Amino acid sequence: MQDQEIAQAVAGLDPEAQRLYRIRHSLAHVLAQAVLSLQPTAKLGFGPPVENGFYYDFDLEEPITAADLPKLQKKMKEILRQKQSFTRTELPADQAIEKTTAMGQPYKVEASSDLRAKGVEVISFYENGPFTDMCEGPHVETTKEIPEDAFLLDSIAGAYWRGSEKNKMLTRIYGLAFARKEELDDYLARRKLAQERDHKKLGRELELFHIEEEIGKGLILWLPKGTVLRDEVEALAKEFEFRYGYERVSTPHITKQELYYRSGHLPYYKESMFPPMEVAEDDSRAMEGDAPGEAAGARPKEVFYLKPMNCPHHHMIYKHRPRSYRELPVRLAEYGTCYRFEQSGELSGLLRVRCLTMNDAHIYLTRAQALEEIRTILQMYREIYAVFDFTRYRFRLSLHDPARTEKYHDDEDLWREAEAVLKEALEREGVEYYVGEDEAAFYGPKIDIQFRNLLGREETVSTIQYDSVAPNRFDLTYVDEHGQEERPVVLHRAPLSTHERILSYLIEHYGGAFPTWLAPIQVRLITVSDELLPYAEELRGILRAEGVRAEVDLSPHSFGKKIRNGAIEKLPILLVIGKKEAEERAVTVRRYQIEQQDTMPFAEFHNLLRDEIRTRRHVRPA
Amino acid sequence: MQDQEIAQAVAGLDPEAQRLYRIRHSLAHVLAQAVLSLQPTAKLGFGPPVENGFYYDFDLEEPITAADLPKLQKKMKEILRQKQSFTRTELPADQAIEKTTAMGQPYKVEASSDLRAKGVEVISFYENGPFTDMCEGPHVETTKEIPEDAFLLDSIAGAYWRGSEKNKMLTRIYGLAFARKEELDDYLARRKLAQERDHKKLGRELELFHIEEEIGKGLILWLPKGTVLRDEVEALAKEFEFRYGYERVSTPHITKQELYYRSGHLPYYKESMFPPMEVAEDDSRAMEGDAPGEAAGARPKEVFYLKPMNCPHHHMIYKHRPRSYRELPVRLAEYGTCYRFEQSGELSGLLRVRCLTMNDAHIYLTRAQALEEIRTILQMYREIYAVFDFTRYRFRLSLHDPARTEKYHDDEDLWREAEAVLKEALEREGVEYYVGEDEAAFYGPKIDIQFRNLLGREETVSTIQYDSVAPNRFDLTYVDEHGQEERPVVLHRAPLSTHERILSYLIEHYGGAFPTWLAPIQVRLITVSDELLPYAEELRGILRAEGVRAEVDLSPHSFGKKIRNGAIEKLPILLVIGKKEAEERAVTVRRYQIEQQDTMPFAEFHNLLRDEIRTRRHVRPA
Repeated sequence: MQDQEIAQAVAGLDPEAQRLYRIRHSLAHVLAQAVLSLQPTAKLGFGPPVENGFYYDFDLEEPITAADLPKLQKKMKEILRQKQSFTRTELPADQAIEKTTAMGQPYKVEASSDLRAKGVEVISFYENGPFTDMCEGPHVETTKEIPEDAFLLDSIAGAYWRGSEKNKMLTRIYGLAFARKEELDDYLARRKLAQERDHKKLGRELELFHIEEEIGKGLILWLPKGTVLRDEVEALAKEFEFRYGYERVSTPHITKQELYYRSGHLPYYKESMFPPMEVAEDDSRAMEGDAPGEAAGARPKEVFYLKPMNCPHHHMIYKHRPRSYRELPVRLAEYGTCYRFEQSGELSGLLRVRCLTMNDAHIYLTRAQALEEIRTILQMYREIYAVFDFTRYRFRLSLHDPARTEKYHDDEDLWREAEAVLKEALEREGVEYYVGEDEAAFYGPKIDIQFRNLLGREETVSTIQYDSVAPNRFDLTYVDEHGQEERPVVLHRAPLSTHERILSYLIEHYGGAFPTWLAPIQVRLITVSDELLPYAEELRGILRAEGVRAEVDLSPHSFGKKIRNGAIEKLPILLVIGKKEAEERAVTVRRYQIEQQDTMPFAEFHNLLRDEIRTRRHVRPA
Repeated sequence: MQDQEIAQAVAGLDPEAQRLYRIRHSLAHVLAQAVLSLQPTAKLGFGPPVENGFYYDFDLEEPITAADLPKLQKKMKEILRQKQSFTRTELPADQAIEKTTAMGQPYKVEASSDLRAKGVEVISFYENGPFTDMCEGPHVETTKEIPEDAFLLDSIAGAYWRGSEKNKMLTRIYGLAFARKEELDDYLARRKLAQERDHKKLGRELELFHIEEEIGKGLILWLPKGTVLRDEVEALAKEFEFRYGYERVSTPHITKQELYYRSGHLPYYKESMFPPMEVAEDDSRAMEGDAPGEAAGARPKEVFYLKPMNCPHHHMIYKHRPRSYRELPVRLAEYGTCYRFEQSGELSGLLRVRCLTMNDAHIYLTRAQALEEIRTILQMYREIYAVFDFTRYRFRLSLHDPARTEKYHDDEDLWREAEAVLKEALEREGVEYYVGEDEAAFYGPKIDIQFRNLLGREETVSTIQYDSVAPNRFDLTYVDEHGQEERPVVLHRAPLSTHERILSYLIEHYGGAFPTWLAPIQVRLITVSDELLPYAEELRGILRAEGVRAEVDLSPHSFGKKIRNGAIEKLPILLVIGKKEAEERAVTVRRYQIEQQDTMPFAEFHNLLRDEIRTRRHVRPA
């Protein structure tokens, strides 16, 4: 790792993170020492620290398998106990090449030669005990700084030397490493949870969605139970949007290319769009508006694109007639389905898809209205996230870098105004946030909502954007109180992200055990014996008449098996019906992962359920 | 009109229709006689009877304008009073050409020459009074059979001789004609209503939808108020579908072409589809399944199409896992948006579009279950139509013609079974229907629901189809009670058609004055003076908290103007608030086109409104 940038980056970390970096990096060397002690002919690739641990790549004569990891780990612990010191030496590049050649390590020879070719003059080595590695460091002082019980050899994989298919496949051994045992245990527990709750796994097991090769990768088929989740999330959004004065619109999934030349998506965004559909214009009417880009000579022809976002369609709705200041803010909302051509290698479950349905809205308002509206949007975001008890998210104020004139529009006055408005809105709402420098959009600053998944990885799930560019490109106007034409500002917002992304989070967040309001099956009635079925069917009918997703278990299984199946399917409520319940018009209520069962009159249960669904309450184990 | 087919067709009509045909056809001759009496040099084109009347084409030296029509009409009435007899003569074709030449009528010369060229040997003429026309008939015996008060010269248009742009533009005079004055009056009233209620006109006036050239023809932008209509219709469908045991799914709008080679849409349906989107396959994995048709050599490439219908996507959901007889019928429903490439000349408002969102469902069941399911579907259709008080529709049982082997699949046993099942379902449900011979789909018989618009034109708005072909093409199966794999049957149904089509009907059906449950704005509060606004705002808040689309008129207009605006916008309910109302916590309720106004406590109004919306009741003028 002869890389000054790494050294500088490490130096910039906080002391705890630096310590972790040194531990992980040093453990990689200890692993290599352990492998060499067992296979002295092993050739060494690279061995860096990584997120949660480290790895080292080896070219081996005798293969190492997962079964060998305990032995290797034992050997590593022995080395740690030897309290080996790490010492750094530096050599001129020529001598470093001689040294790695003498070590009989061809990959190191190649790496040092490359460094020399790049102009590196001095190459450093680290030595601990009998082991020497060409390495930039930093490392711990001695191996006794490394806790024996906070690391673990985790897995083995194949990895091409330097990541290229043209090179030899090496054996990569992965280790987990932390500063303390509790952190390792915590990570392992979180990883286990994340695996159990993986949305792809649960999506299959709970029959939520399916991807069909014959239709296409990244194109989700939402099965009935997954469609309930979408519909409930959408109903939630509509409810909030109605309350906050949004108006819903509905727009087609395609448009002629002219719209995207106007918006600027063409040609700049073309790579991320599905290819065009070209048709010969079939009538003699002249087309209005020329595409400034391509195909000027090939008239008459119409070129259609699938929409990669909803904004341009909404802008055209805003401008379909003149607007007065009296009607601003105009808030246009749509759960709009967009298409983006992601590379197939990057597609992954619901997280990275080619068809996405966005909780989109565009708000057209005067500059003077922006502060209040953004405050209101922030309130709405927090209220919506509270419905799900989301806590693993934070707000980022994403600002522009005035030096990067190619990345941002050039009206510095507008930037100052817009950035100040977002900042003030966050502060007046008492929202904790951090600043992301150089994270703005081309057209303005934004507030990004960063979600952390179970493994701690953070992603932008939602955003609030202040757009000063679209109003110009689309010539959006309103007439102010003096009869003057003015430019509105456009705010973009999507608290519930896309159905695909938010549901991947919700599935993992709840581990598939959804609260009653959201659950695809809300209530399953299970009878102790078949002669009680008419009573169960009657209750089912009463519940379904009010829109409750209730069903009776009519399978040929035993009572016990039916109860177990309810748990496997993570249903929120099982209603058990025995003879006594039927006689007394009662039910026994079993809830997912809650031991206590309550027998109560059906009418009482019905009232409880109605309230639980209406208020979207989540009844969980204490 | 020397056309034996016409003569036969007329002979096949019922006596009343035959009489109407003769009247209209004779009036065309009377019109020509009237025109010749004013302009003896006029050259005659054709003059046939048409729906609701007749026309005649003239080549004139002096132009005739709409201002001349009363004079012409007066002349026609004079002719009618002369009790002219119509007499038929027949001439050999050669003599007919001589006769038309002698008449100085070059268009008739051309027509008679063409007839001779086609091998027609005898050509007939009709003579009434001083007027003679080359004509196949039939006509009335004398003009006294034609009521003077049941016809009307209606309009003038240009029309190319024989419909070809290459020919001369003639002057076409249109007349309306009926057997009785009441029928003419009725038609004129219906036409006036249809014009007032035209969905394109109301769509613009009430701000329901907009078509934007820059996005594309036939691609509807649903404005906020139109989106409410869509959402309410969709909510209605979902409610019924939930009650009838349907499960909702959600599928992408595109697919790889392989799916359509399987379904058979490619290549046969290609003309009606948007053109393909072709992308180079970007990863190295081999593709499964070959497109049997085109581009076999051009691998690796992926070809995507916009979906013209939802069926194939649903079939893939059905078959994504094995199915047991225990779970049938499986009913998959989706408001699916499809794309069809209609020729731009055929696009018209919401009636003929390129993007359509269908109230689709596919039902997978055993053959033995089909009869009961179709009965249930018929019940559902009638219940849904009753919500709208639709009466102008009828059911057609559309059967196949065994002789047309190219048009229909060839399993005669299946046809017999399927047609018998549909017929029995209609009869057991007591549904009146008529038979449409040779109106089936390729894959099976169907029940079509024929809607009549205000002008009496009938179109298939919805359908119930029995499909025996898709299960084979898609290899759909279920395991029966003996563990045997069996083919299910697929039923297609869409009671609410597409949003576009049903809303074009609903807009015209209600003339834009929607019942409260459907209305984009349900309640507008109008105060007599501004100091009452806080009370109005409070009531608005109470109503909106329950999801009522209520608003306060805050415009600067006078009270009277506000009331008039409410009527112009056809709002179902205006709540008038004066001082007395505010003091007593009351409201005065004004309903669209209902004179009586009721003052009542707000709480009472609120209960009435809640009930009216929940039950989807339509409060209309008595």
